[in-house]
Amino acid sequence: MSQALLTDLYELTMAYSYFKRGMNSPATFDLFVRPPVPNRRFLVFAGLESALSYLENLHFDDDDLAYLDTLGLFDRDFLDYLSRFRFQGEVWSVSEGEIVFPGEPLITIEAPRIEAQIVETFLLNTVNYETLIASKAARVLLAAGKEASVVDFSPRRDHGADAAIKAARASYLAGFDGTSNVLAGKLFGLPVVGTMAHSYVMSFPDEGAAFRAFAEDHPRPILLIDTYDLTRGLENAIAVAKELQAKGRSLVGVRIDSGDLAEATRMVRRRLDAAGLHDVKIFISGDLDEYRIEAFKAQGGVAWGYGVGTRLGTSYDLPALGGVYKLVEDDAGPRIKKSPGKHTLPGKKQVWRLEDDGHPSDRITLREETGEGRPLLRQVMRQGRRLVPPPDLKKLREATRERIFSLPEALKDLSPVENPTYPVTVSPRLLSLQNEAFLENS
Amino acid sequence: MSQALLTDLYELTMAYSYFKRGMNSPATFDLFVRPPVPNRRFLVFAGLESALSYLENLHFDDDDLAYLDTLGLFDRDFLDYLSRFRFQGEVWSVSEGEIVFPGEPLITIEAPRIEAQIVETFLLNTVNYETLIASKAARVLLAAGKEASVVDFSPRRDHGADAAIKAARASYLAGFDGTSNVLAGKLFGLPVVGTMAHSYVMSFPDEGAAFRAFAEDHPRPILLIDTYDLTRGLENAIAVAKELQAKGRSLVGVRIDSGDLAEATRMVRRRLDAAGLHDVKIFISGDLDEYRIEAFKAQGGVAWGYGVGTRLGTSYDLPALGGVYKLVEDDAGPRIKKSPGKHTLPGKKQVWRLEDDGHPSDRITLREETGEGRPLLRQVMRQGRRLVPPPDLKKLREATRERIFSLPEALKDLSPVENPTYPVTVSPRLLSLQNEAFLENS
Repeated sequence: MSQALLTDLYELTMAYSYFKRGMNSPATFDLFVRPPVPNRRFLVFAGLESALSYLENLHFDDDDLAYLDTLGLFDRDFLDYLSRFRFQGEVWSVSEGEIVFPGEPLITIEAPRIEAQIVETFLLNTVNYETLIASKAARVLLAAGKEASVVDFSPRRDHGADAAIKAARASYLAGFDGTSNVLAGKLFGLPVVGTMAHSYVMSFPDEGAAFRAFAEDHPRPILLIDTYDLTRGLENAIAVAKELQAKGRSLVGVRIDSGDLAEATRMVRRRLDAAGLHDVKIFISGDLDEYRIEAFKAQGGVAWGYGVGTRLGTSYDLPALGGVYKLVEDDAGPRIKKSPGKHTLPGKKQVWRLEDDGHPSDRITLREETGEGRPLLRQVMRQGRRLVPPPDLKKLREATRERIFSLPEALKDLSPVENPTYPVTVSPRLLSLQNEAFLENS
Repeated sequence: MSQALLTDLYELTMAYSYFKRGMNSPATFDLFVRPPVPNRRFLVFAGLESALSYLENLHFDDDDLAYLDTLGLFDRDFLDYLSRFRFQGEVWSVSEGEIVFPGEPLITIEAPRIEAQIVETFLLNTVNYETLIASKAARVLLAAGKEASVVDFSPRRDHGADAAIKAARASYLAGFDGTSNVLAGKLFGLPVVGTMAHSYVMSFPDEGAAFRAFAEDHPRPILLIDTYDLTRGLENAIAVAKELQAKGRSLVGVRIDSGDLAEATRMVRRRLDAAGLHDVKIFISGDLDEYRIEAFKAQGGVAWGYGVGTRLGTSYDLPALGGVYKLVEDDAGPRIKKSPGKHTLPGKKQVWRLEDDGHPSDRITLREETGEGRPLLRQVMRQGRRLVPPPDLKKLREATRERIFSLPEALKDLSPVENPTYPVTVSPRLLSLQNEAFLENS
């Protein structure tokens, strides 16, 4: 199935009008997130790989065209044009895993107007979600701390199959250790992890039998100890751990998924240690997110690892990013939109990052200006062909983790905030161009 | 690509253990939403078609098996078993579009234990999301009112491609009039709708030229009038409407996407009427949901139609449903889980609905009991083959709309509520079975 029709109808009705009028000279669009973004003091950019793969493969199948014909909106010439349609534009983009801020162009598309218009919906769909999840994952990591193991348990609550796959990749890219999602593991080479469900325990005559069976059938067993009674579950797990020890094997850990997790983990750690099982890890799950992990730790909870599901994969405290895609320049010059509260920055731009002792400080300039620091946008596609290979996800993850944990304390603060401020300024030349365009445009 | 690996790893590690032990006698699992669900006084069930299509087509490709082999968790016998794997169980389900309540079984799977286990993740993923969106759409419809036209504008903010497709279908199924999503239109035969973006207006020398061009190129034009200045935009639209009238055509409507929508629509309606353009419709969009539509109407806003995007497709005030999938019976009898706050109802069940003057009142019973009213669960699959054809979506939409608008006022109340109560009781026999199982199970 081609992805060409994963678009709002208006992209095609606008494209049709441009086509009829020969309005296909180059136009430049910026994809950026409108500030402010509640509860997000920074974002982690993700979605470029999905975007590039889409742009490289974009085409309309025969049955797409047959369907469009049934709508009665387009003539034969336009459908013929679509049958030959390929994206042949230039793309500038921030790299995946980069820390970014609302207001900064993340992707800039320069292409014949029709091509640039038609790709809007898909690019927004994928960048909005992948950046949303990478940014949420970064917060969960900060709450869990550098030493903890954090994995994605979200597939059952993600919004459909594509979300589950993208949530696994985006959270790994931000620094998670793995995912329960087997398909994402296969597609991206991510570490896949998993223990057992309550239904497994319930499928045996008693809990001890279930634990023994699982330990026998799984090389690295983690036992879920709260199906019936936590204390009894723990005793059963300790018995199995001793049996494994006697065979030269070991119990990797126990998982707790319900109840007062802080109190439960303290008790479990104490008893495991008392039994000499210092290496048996405690793994917790159950509607976790950065707020709950912070509270858990503040209450003295002790865990080696966290399985984070629903609230990661749906970015529960902020279920959508306000990413938009705006015309900023065309053959008539720089362009801006004047709708109340929705002004845009005109022209082709660059973002320059100064890092003073880990404190990022960004300036948005015109692309032709030279700023201080490091330019965040680089050209990644020319005439529809990508210029950069896909990233090595393992290395990207390492670098992103490092970047997130090295952020200044003010940005690492996870407390809720309605209207965060961002360390971003706009160059005087760009500001004055905005003022000119505001006065001039229509 | 097969969907078999869209699963949590633990489904496969558990399945492997069952396989090794020959534990493959029939087991019954219920899929239900844990009560309470904040801000939802009722739910609209959706996702059955995705579930049945998944179950009918479920298989492991050669490259799925090759990947699983690399994990070092499974032996050759099990991979051989998976290569022949097909879902051959029985499925009972509520019908799509039915009003349902948390706690009620929505889908019951009875299958050899391995089959029943492996399908958990996908079923939860799709039913959780589709029911979430159908339920959110119902609230938006109630706010907009029976006379209004409401359409899905969510693709750019939905969580990936699959979510965009499912949001379009689920909102239509609940009673929306259409979607901007062209692919969903093609896949499900949904009406597709769309107007123009600000970038279209900005692509012409002036707004009037843009409006004229669009009206010429589109048979049913709706003009977006807030790119630069609303009042001027409206004047330009009125001029175009008059020109169309002179040609025997008409302007369908104007769209407003920003600013104070209540005030703006009052002004626009007044001026359109003053210009004799009573038939020109007002269409609004911009971060709408049921709360904002209620407020808009309370402030005297007047709109013929609503485009609802971000807050529909992400179910912004409740981004996830707590749907779970629990073992309720196996060859050892009825089963329950005892984790704190997470008790389940054992056994194979039925839900009976009494409708007293539109007031639904439900009772959950054992399947073998006969209740009063109408049974909500029917068998939809036998030995892996579906027993019911896919629904006619148009008819289903009509019936669901009717059902939603006919609900009693108490259920139609849209005000936020942390802990709604639901008109659901449990039969004495089922309650006593739960008590027995609670005492017995492990």
